[in-house]
Parts: sequence; C-alpha cells; structure tokens
Amino acid sequence: MKLTILKHWLNEAMQHVSKAINGKNTLPILSGIKMDVTPQGVTLTASDIDTTIQATIPAATEDGAQIVTVEEPGSVVLPAKLLVEMIKKLPKEEVHIETEVGYAALLKSGKTKINMVGMDPEEFPAVPALTEERSFTIAGADIRDMIKETVFAVSTSEQSLILTGVLWQLEPSKLTLLATDRHRLAQTAAEVGDGDNAPIKFVVSGKMLNELIKVIPDKGDVEITATQSQVLIEVGRTRLYCRILDGNYPDTSKIIPTAFKSELVVSTKAINAAVDRAFLLAKEEKTNIVRLETGEDNAVTVSSNSSGLGSVSEQLEAESITGEPVRISFNSKYMLDVLKVIDSEQLRIGFTGPMSPIIIKPVDGKDSLYLILPYRTTN
Amino acid sequence: MKLTILKHWLNEAMQHVSKAINGKNTLPILSGIKMDVTPQGVTLTASDIDTTIQATIPAATEDGAQIVTVEEPGSVVLPAKLLVEMIKKLPKEEVHIETEVGYAALLKSGKTKINMVGMDPEEFPAVPALTEERSFTIAGADIRDMIKETVFAVSTSEQSLILTGVLWQLEPSKLTLLATDRHRLAQTAAEVGDGDNAPIKFVVSGKMLNELIKVIPDKGDVEITATQSQVLIEVGRTRLYCRILDGNYPDTSKIIPTAFKSELVVSTKAINAAVDRAFLLAKEEKTNIVRLETGEDNAVTVSSNSSGLGSVSEQLEAESITGEPVRISFNSKYMLDVLKVIDSEQLRIGFTGPMSPIIIKPVDGKDSLYLILPYRTTN
Repeated sequence: MKLTILKHWLNEAMQHVSKAINGKNTLPILSGIKMDVTPQGVTLTASDIDTTIQATIPAATEDGAQIVTVEEPGSVVLPAKLLVEMIKKLPKEEVHIETEVGYAALLKSGKTKINMVGMDPEEFPAVPALTEERSFTIAGADIRDMIKETVFAVSTSEQSLILTGVLWQLEPSKLTLLATDRHRLAQTAAEVGDGDNAPIKFVVSGKMLNELIKVIPDKGDVEITATQSQVLIEVGRTRLYCRILDGNYPDTSKIIPTAFKSELVVSTKAINAAVDRAFLLAKEEKTNIVRLETGEDNAVTVSSNSSGLGSVSEQLEAESITGEPVRISFNSKYMLDVLKVIDSEQLRIGFTGPMSPIIIKPVDGKDSLYLILPYRTTN
Repeated sequence: MKLTILKHWLNEAMQHVSKAINGKNTLPILSGIKMDVTPQGVTLTASDIDTTIQATIPAATEDGAQIVTVEEPGSVVLPAKLLVEMIKKLPKEEVHIETEVGYAALLKSGKTKINMVGMDPEEFPAVPALTEERSFTIAGADIRDMIKETVFAVSTSEQSLILTGVLWQLEPSKLTLLATDRHRLAQTAAEVGDGDNAPIKFVVSGKMLNELIKVIPDKGDVEITATQSQVLIEVGRTRLYCRILDGNYPDTSKIIPTAFKSELVVSTKAINAAVDRAFLLAKEEKTNIVRLETGEDNAVTVSSNSSGLGSVSEQLEAESITGEPVRISFNSKYMLDVLKVIDSEQLRIGFTGPMSPIIIKPVDGKDSLYLILPYRTTN
C-alpha cells in the first residue's frame, strides 16, 4: 500500500468514522481504523461490532482535482486515536502513506515522519451483509430534527435494553420515531414516500443516533435501508451500519390520552423561562418537582421549593385555558428537555387529572407529541 | 434591608465574588454571599477564609444614573449557588430585594417571586485587617500576563504547600514573579515603581491567582497592597484579599545556569508544532519523553516513540546553533506549557549538558526565563 492523500479530506473522513470507536472495547483490532486503498480511492472503516462507520474518499473531485494518488493498492489497520489526533496536526496538506513489513506504516508530511504500528486488515470484522432490504430517502435536516426531538427520552438504564433505543415505524407514507424511558415519551412523525410496502418497525440505539446527528450535514438527503438485523444510513460518502436492538418494543399507544379534562395554550418561551427558574430550586431536592396551577384570568402559576434554600413562585399568562382547573406536579428536568426541542412559538398542554399523563404538543402543526408522567404529591 | 437594584450590575458583582467560594467548605455560612446595603450602595462579600473577594456596587453611575435605590439599609447572607444561577435568569432588569423575619429574603423581578433562606450576617467572617502595608500599582494587562507566564509551573502537590504558590519579589523598581514544582521553573519580571523601600517577598496561592486573572479587565490599573499575612489586590470595584502562604520559599537562584555549552535560536511556532506532534506519541507512555538533537546545517530533530504505537521524528531548521552538539530528553508537556505562554516569535534555548537544566528565554527582550530539568535516558 502506497499513496499520497490530501490532509483535509483524510481528516474529515477520519473524524466521521472514529465516532464508531468505543474506548471501552477490549478487542485490540477495534481500536484501529481500517484503510482500504484502491485505484478508485480510499475507504476508512471503524467499528465497535454493534456500529460500523465507513467513509470513502474518491481519487478525484467531481471537477477532476486529484485527492488521492495511488501508487500501490492495499489495506492496513492503524491506531485510531493517534491517527485522528496526528492527521490534523500534520505540517503540510500532502500526506504520504506507505506500508512496510509486518503491517507497519510510514506517514510523511513535510519534514515529519511517523512510523505507526499497524494491525492485520484480515482480522478486522467484515461490514454487515444486508439482505431483504427496505429503503427510503429523507432530507438530512428533517431526520436530524426528528432524532433530536425524540432521542433525549430514551432510557439510560441497561435494565430494559430495548428502551435505550428509538423505535422507527415506517408506514406507506409516514415515518414515526418514538422513545420512552417509562416516565416520559417523545414521538414525532414526518411524511416519507415508501410506496405500498407493508409497515415495518425497528429499534436503533439512542447512543448511535446521537453520533449520527453529528455527521448529517445541513443539506442533502439521507438514504436509510433496513433489514431484519441491521439498519444502514447513508449520508453523502459516509455509511453507518447499526445493529437493530433485539426484543419487542412495548406498545405505548394505550397510555397516550386523546381527550383532556383541561387544556392550556402558552408561549413556549414564557413557560420555558418560568420552569427553568423553578428548576434551580427543584434540582436541589433531586426529585426536580415543580408544581403548575391554573387560576383566574388565564393565570398560570409555576412554583417549587427546596427545604434548605427557599421557594420560587412565577406567574404567567396563558393564551387560553379550557376545562377544569389544573393543579399538578412534574419532573421539571423532563419538562425542560421537551421545551428545548419545541420550535413552535406556542404549545398546547393537555391534562386528564393529577395522576394521568401530561401531553405537550407544538401549536405549529408539526406532528410531534410529548408525554410526561406527573408526580404524586401530598398537597 | 430593602432595595431595588439593576440586574446586570448585581450579576457582574456576584460573578466576581462567587469565585472565592469553595464547594468543599464545610462551614455553612461560607456557602453564602454577604450583602451589605448602605445609602452609598451594595457590597457583596464571599470567602473561603484563605481568600475573600469583595465587590461594591455604587448607588449611581458617575453620570448620575441610578443603579441601587435603597429604602432600608441592612445586611444578610444568602445562598451563593442559587443566587448566582437565579439572578442572571430573572425576567426583568429591576430586582427588588427585602429581608423578612429570621434572615429570610424576598426577591422580586417581574412576576417572579423568590423566598430565600438566609443566614445571620454577624456570623460571616470579617474582612482581614491590613497593617504595616506596602502598596504598588501595575497595569492590569501586565500583571495578568505575568501571572499567566508563571502560574502554570506551581506544584499541584499539597506535600510542599509553599510551592503551590507563586513567589512575588518586590524590589525598588522591579517586580519578579516565580513558580517552580522542582521539575521546572518559570520566572518573569517587570518594572514597577515602589520608591526606595526595602525589598519584600511573599507567596500567593496559584489557585487564587488563576481566579484573579479572570477578574482583571483589559484596561485599567491594579493596586496591590502587601502585609505580613495578607495581600490585597484591588481591581476596579473588586477587592481580593488573599492569605500569604506560610513558609520559606526555596532559593532557586543557584539552580539557574547563566553560561551555556550550547545555545540554539528557533522559531517558537516551528518548535511548538514539532514538540506538539511528538507529544501525541510521548503521552501514551505517561513520561511524555521527547528527544531533541542538533545536527549539521542548523538542523534540529525532535523525536519520540511509544512501544505500542510507533515513533515520530521531525526536522526543523534553527535560526542558529552555537557550541557543542546537543542530545537531550525532556518532558514534552512541560515544554508545551512554556511554548504556550511565550509571545516572542523566536526563542533561545540554552543547554549545559544532558543532565543539567534547559533554559528557555524569549528573544523579544521580555525579562522572562523558563527552566526544565531534562530526563535521564539510557541512549
């Protein structure tokens, strides 16, 4: 293997694939990045078995400008951490790489020479084979928003592994993402053209999706291919293979109320500021409890207290309040997580009683829904 | 106590004084900020006993614009963490504060009401009294630079407490700051007019100086007053009282060589880049060892290796090399710390042998000096 490559192309691809690397991995080969060099260009692969990220660098740009000059094709696995840190600090834009005996590699750039201990590329796990596949395309910015709007609600407990993922439900003309940790739930949907195929469902790790949103660019489409065991997400020249989480995702449809005893419409910014201040005291009690109460003349009072510090009470004016008076307590951290991802200027909050789920929806027509279970409190 | 105050003035003063608060402190009163209200304005004080920071907010600006409206003077101690977080999030610029029974305080801003559990101001430690004082004035930007150029070299080990501080030496027309952790040393001096007084020395905690540089503004002077036990640093409306560290600071003058067997002059940027890349491998071995070797034609080679990862070798061209050939090993982290604070485009490195201190000086005429002890290596 012998080639010359432009630093910033190599660096960008390396940054993308290195997100698959799990520092806790004990398999030495997985601490490396595999580099495959062909006359067409360079492919980098990194993996933690569950997730594999692959990025290709073409030999030339579409305008014909040379990116990679291949003198000798080949493959090698190089230490990822050193490579990622070193490449961006190289003195010149041109980087020369060649393998020597025993998987060792020599990198040269300007008057810098680096000898790296490499590993056998044959030992690197193969990229998953995809069979019985189903594909659809969605705008990158849209799927990134959908992931952000749901992924915060996944469970962080390894006890219920399936809930650490986000449920993707693909119907003939609609994609729904849903996450829940049993205390709260986030759901969002968008129109996606998938023809007349039968609906499918799969669960993708929340951790993996948090990495994915970092590599999705603002422009361009994302192609998603799902099989029984893997989902492949293609973003430009980057391919992310992700193992689908095993197990049955619980049916959440029954816990989402559709009729409400009370509803209020409020400014997202105003309620966010009020809950945020109440949270400052609530968080000192670990439970993060904040109380919400409706009053006369569209008044909404948000309050909290901490035995050692004091109490806070806020009044804001709702756009409208309908139905029975409300007096309910909830985890303000959960509420802030929801308010952070709602773009809509106003939102609608539905209540069905002090012990029943609170439902929050944007007013801008976006097909999203958030659920928070209230706290049982004595007063 | 009853007053109305503008939020951004209160917030700024609070940010400054809160830097004195030590989260590990077990004395409950020191988790609070003391607020003293007089017709002249508001004084805030926070302390961890060793360090006390005080900030005053005048009743009006120099132009006569009202900042504080005092209805009733008084004092109270309020919970610092909550106060600092809450003040900046208050909805309106006007903040009303009044004390109630039992040191409780009520804060109001817009439709936000906060009841805070306060503490007895009589319990708050008094600001240190200063006697037999010596004062001098220095430009804020200058003293900030001098602290940055030395404080990184203080010891982090509590075993030799005196070395966790920076030594200040005030002579009739010169101030010298010096720090060492026995493996390296940093020293810088500036002209300061202090008349014909006898020289004095004192040692100020490095941790405290790191906080101090955050509150020194770009413009304006700093007044420094030293006594036997305290140093007071006045920056605008902020006063920092700091206990002087007890003990004798070791005499370092004998370990600084003044004649060299070899000297090299190099570009600060070039040697920084080379050592930085060599550090990427060196740091994997914990010792951070990097080797420097001079060759023919002003060539300097910087190299390092890591058994598991490989090796790196760099060549750069020195401006000049005089004296015997050099072959020396050192801790690259220590060298990078020095290179980071040197502004000069070029620097001079002096060597007196493979086991003797390495001396680094800027070429721009600044009165600074850095010392690094080399490593004993077998080859």
